[in-house]
Amino acid sequence: MEANEQRAIGILTSGGDAPGMNAAIRAVTRAAIFAGFKVFGIMRGYKGLITDEIEEFSTQNVSNIIQRGGTILKTARCKEFQTKEGRQCAYDVLQRHGISALVVIGGDGSLTGARIFANEFQFQIIGLPGTIDNDLYGTDSTIGYDTALNTIMDCVDKIRDTATSHERLFFIEVMGRDAGFLALNGAIASGAEAAIIPEVATQEDQLDELIANGFRKSKNSSIVLVAESPSTGGAMGLAERVKKEYPNYDVRVSILGHLQRGGSPTAYDRILASRMGAAAVDALLDDQRNVMIGIKNDEIVYVPFTKAIKNDKPINRELMSTLRRLSI
Amino acid sequence: MEANEQRAIGILTSGGDAPGMNAAIRAVTRAAIFAGFKVFGIMRGYKGLITDEIEEFSTQNVSNIIQRGGTILKTARCKEFQTKEGRQCAYDVLQRHGISALVVIGGDGSLTGARIFANEFQFQIIGLPGTIDNDLYGTDSTIGYDTALNTIMDCVDKIRDTATSHERLFFIEVMGRDAGFLALNGAIASGAEAAIIPEVATQEDQLDELIANGFRKSKNSSIVLVAESPSTGGAMGLAERVKKEYPNYDVRVSILGHLQRGGSPTAYDRILASRMGAAAVDALLDDQRNVMIGIKNDEIVYVPFTKAIKNDKPINRELMSTLRRLSI
Amino acid sequence: MEANEQRAIGILTSGGDAPGMNAAIRAVTRAAIFAGFKVFGIMRGYKGLITDEIEEFSTQNVSNIIQRGGTILKTARCKEFQTKEGRQCAYDVLQRHGISALVVIGGDGSLTGARIFANEFQFQIIGLPGTIDNDLYGTDSTIGYDTALNTIMDCVDKIRDTATSHERLFFIEVMGRDAGFLALNGAIASGAEAAIIPEVATQEDQLDELIANGFRKSKNSSIVLVAESPSTGGAMGLAERVKKEYPNYDVRVSILGHLQRGGSPTAYDRILASRMGAAAVDALLDDQRNVMIGIKNDEIVYVPFTKAIKNDKPINRELMSTLRRLSI
Amino acid sequence: MEANEQRAIGILTSGGDAPGMNAAIRAVTRAAIFAGFKVFGIMRGYKGLITDEIEEFSTQNVSNIIQRGGTILKTARCKEFQTKEGRQCAYDVLQRHGISALVVIGGDGSLTGARIFANEFQFQIIGLPGTIDNDLYGTDSTIGYDTALNTIMDCVDKIRDTATSHERLFFIEVMGRDAGFLALNGAIASGAEAAIIPEVATQEDQLDELIANGFRKSKNSSIVLVAESPSTGGAMGLAERVKKEYPNYDVRVSILGHLQRGGSPTAYDRILASRMGAAAVDALLDDQRNVMIGIKNDEIVYVPFTKAIKNDKPINRELMSTLRRLSI
Repeated sequence: MEANEQRAIGILTSGGDAPGMNAAIRAVTRAAIFAGFKVFGIMRGYKGLITDEIEEFSTQNVSNIIQRGGTILKTARCKEFQTKEGRQCAYDVLQRHGISALVVIGGDGSLTGARIFANEFQFQIIGLPGTIDNDLYGTDSTIGYDTALNTIMDCVDKIRDTATSHERLFFIEVMGRDAGFLALNGAIASGAEAAIIPEVATQEDQLDELIANGFRKSKNSSIVLVAESPSTGGAMGLAERVKKEYPNYDVRVSILGHLQRGGSPTAYDRILASRMGAAAVDALLDDQRNVMIGIKNDEIVYVPFTKAIKNDKPINRELMSTLRRLSI
Repeated sequence: MEANEQRAIGILTSGGDAPGMNAAIRAVTRAAIFAGFKVFGIMRGYKGLITDEIEEFSTQNVSNIIQRGGTILKTARCKEFQTKEGRQCAYDVLQRHGISALVVIGGDGSLTGARIFANEFQFQIIGLPGTIDNDLYGTDSTIGYDTALNTIMDCVDKIRDTATSHERLFFIEVMGRDAGFLALNGAIASGAEAAIIPEVATQEDQLDELIANGFRKSKNSSIVLVAESPSTGGAMGLAERVKKEYPNYDVRVSILGHLQRGGSPTAYDRILASRMGAAAVDALLDDQRNVMIGIKNDEIVYVPFTKAIKNDKPINRELMSTLRRLSI
Repeated sequence: MEANEQRAIGILTSGGDAPGMNAAIRAVTRAAIFAGFKVFGIMRGYKGLITDEIEEFSTQNVSNIIQRGGTILKTARCKEFQTKEGRQCAYDVLQRHGISALVVIGGDGSLTGARIFANEFQFQIIGLPGTIDNDLYGTDSTIGYDTALNTIMDCVDKIRDTATSHERLFFIEVMGRDAGFLALNGAIASGAEAAIIPEVATQEDQLDELIANGFRKSKNSSIVLVAESPSTGGAMGLAERVKKEYPNYDVRVSILGHLQRGGSPTAYDRILASRMGAAAVDALLDDQRNVMIGIKNDEIVYVPFTKAIKNDKPINRELMSTLRRLSI
Repeated sequence: MEANEQRAIGILTSGGDAPGMNAAIRAVTRAAIFAGFKVFGIMRGYKGLITDEIEEFSTQNVSNIIQRGGTILKTARCKEFQTKEGRQCAYDVLQRHGISALVVIGGDGSLTGARIFANEFQFQIIGLPGTIDNDLYGTDSTIGYDTALNTIMDCVDKIRDTATSHERLFFIEVMGRDAGFLALNGAIASGAEAAIIPEVATQEDQLDELIANGFRKSKNSSIVLVAESPSTGGAMGLAERVKKEYPNYDVRVSILGHLQRGGSPTAYDRILASRMGAAAVDALLDDQRNVMIGIKNDEIVYVPFTKAIKNDKPINRELMSTLRRLSI
């Protein structure tokens, strides 16, 4: 790139959508234009890179989107990008548009794709952690997690209205593939009796203990949040077991499902997305590459892709103890 | 009752709970105290009548509950009340407390029980229509219906965020046993493509037509609301069929479930419950018996139990045509 | 217009914006395209007619707007349209585009403008009642009213949290120029102690009565909703008077202001706007002119402009009595 | 206290109420009972200490309150507690009940009172930071701040609907005595154009700059958040100045007021309050005294009262830069 040439960057969202992705798109676009870059919006994640669904963005393209759920860039799975030929095609498209860097917003699968592409073509990529699961290492929070947590809490608040009126035991299944953040924090936030999460191997004992001395003692209804992960059996599996062993319980199951991904983002997610989006542009100016923007102790940090997608972010054990002490 | 004696009435909620039941309890209690009555809150529906879970209520007992979902009186199914002995026991308890009239808040099952009891013991009962299903004849709306409709709409708004981002076909199952009010009006309110409701016998054709020329033409995602009634097959049944016949569609199912019963009631439901609760006391003063309070053309009406529970409230066909015209 | 020519209609929003206007724009656009019309969106109300800010709309232009507050067509005051010259200019623009009918969404001022223009140029205009004030005659409800009512209720719910915690007297001012619908129904919905509305001449006595025997007897906080109309003095005026006469009261004022106009529309408003929008197209097909679409007893009706803007829609006195009985 | 005697603690809320106080009351009560303590709820802050409005709490007293705004213990100002006699009286009441420690939930004024009392009588007190202003030193966040921030954002989202429809300049005043956290973060979260906050001395220049090159260039509406602090002039003051100097601007003012203090707490505030409440009991068991529970980098910390109420918590300057870059 010559000094007098205007730099061009692309932005895309990939993988499962998460609330706040639009706030991130807005932030990257505006901070980049503020820095003097041209910005291209790439549709449908890596797919749009290959099919050349690319449009130049002005500040107006991202007006009035900060409050919207979903992603205006849409997202899709893309098998072609998993092949060398697909990635070569994507690279050619980027070259044709003069795009010299990418900002990729997504979860661990998306960042894995970014890492491979970046290495293969020595391409500059900055990642933003966009996933409701909060399962990326190196950042205290991911874009979408706080909104999903509040959505879950609002749903459980509603279910508690009816659970209390009817005196029932509810198993409520929430998202979080192999990560119990949403289930555990959702349980504390909604005053649920327990959370069954994949990080705890002895989850069956949890349930036994819960049933043995937990609910129906002083309480007239109980709510248990269950992470959808196969290792927990899911809400259905637990309910079946309880119905068999304790046939006199009035057990109900609710699977919250896809509504957890949607909705207008919370203040926390909008601010996080705005800060991370601006930081992605700083990272580009700073000639960073192959890093995900993270937040640690309220400060922006750069996390190498290889570290971020290791996926072993630990659950805070203090929270489990808090949940148990408060559900008496 | 002698002239100088203070009259005592009881109030209970029965059947499935509905948002606005607390607003109705508050209204009945306060309007009755305003009229000089003593008021007794009866816990757990007809069950509490038999087990004598009865407490005198002051205006304070119903303070700060208008905004709460569920019912502070709780609700339960009660098999004993379906027997002559159970009802006799309930009558004896009422006599012991000096309670000479009941206000029963619930759906058709609850009002059926009220009708039998009223006839058997010549007991004065006024019913309030409390059910999210809106399936009681003789009233334009039931307490809880507007809130459930808004809850459904909010959920579909969230799901549409992710449906649009991913370009998917969603079947969303909503409540409404044998009544399509929630599915049809929910579809219009949320801008869904179609509603599959029990009132329309040819629902399969609806789906064929929808698939044949409806979605995936100019649209990049489609949402279909499905009433839970067995006659529609439910969301799962429809999804299975589509997946078999159109394997290239990216089909998803969401069952909204119990959260539809909860939540803080809307303005409409709180006002409706307040007016109906006050009207129930007017009806008592007016020596009405065996009537449900209804609302027709924004005026309070009395509907004989026998008419209200006939259950053949028709769907407005104009709405079906509106939905079709607006989903192009 | 010849038989084989495609008919073209224009749509605009005018006056104060109201939630549900976008749902109405969507409905008119889609029902018109369904009927075979061409549809033009006119920006900034009557102003855009004069300045020729007009764009043809496809079904996509109104995708994904049903849930959004405000109006994508924007709205503005337009003095030029109050002159003969301005209106002539508007007419010429319409002729140039081949637009032979207008759908105008707005309040009484907007419909007055429509009536004058329609008479002057024998132009076919259908009106939709879009205003949060609910002050148009001939329709049970206007688009935006239900949403504003719920917004007010949500705000009062929040203020009650702090009012109850602090044991205070709150005067909360709500919109409703010379119409007490929002204040009165908002008071019932939020469990407020009283509403001061312009329709009741003796409002000062209301306040005296309220203070004399109402609050601070058994209650530890009181909330009074006040319509902004000058004839009530507004919340500030009332608070001043109370502070002077009852200096030991802890009085607070809150003026809800413009947030009452915004927000995602409720299910009721979206359905109302959808039905009215479709009905406007029916009215055009039916060769109606100079009528506002209204809703009466859940049926669509046509209301001549001259009747609709008379503006003497009465308050339901039963509601005032209900409020008093329930605030004991 | 002898070893075989059950320890008794008191809990009170003081100062301005904040959402999440009930979640904190629940957490302290349950964690204390879990630890084997007796728990007393003290009504109306320090006032209830003096007037002996004290009640023993069981786990049921705090059931189903985690989701409610306000404080079930109520709060009040108390001049008597500012006198030596008042505090002596409070101490005597505590002795009479056998209460040997207090948990005080409130802002800096409340913690200042706690510090004086603790020193005077060598009384064990643990503080919890409960204030929407987030102005306590030594903790990343205070209970209520996240909820207030989201409430502000929701209000600004609504106002933006109408601002955009009408193309106006809005000054929106938010709470935050001498602390710009709510205004600055609220501006970022809502996509506002600017925030006028007390921490920035040159706030007038901010406004000049904003007007000179900011809004009305590419934007059709502008929203400025203003902290209520006198040093900013407030929203009214700024609006007056703009109206005088730029008479052609369509300027509006909205003062959000007391609704910012209410509402159901967010997930963040409920979890924060739950963790801090449990930590307060840990601190008591740990024989801590005169410390406020804080959260730093997601870990619980103890902050001496003297440090916490120094009140010089700095604004993150990165946020100001982010706001400016994103409002182009």
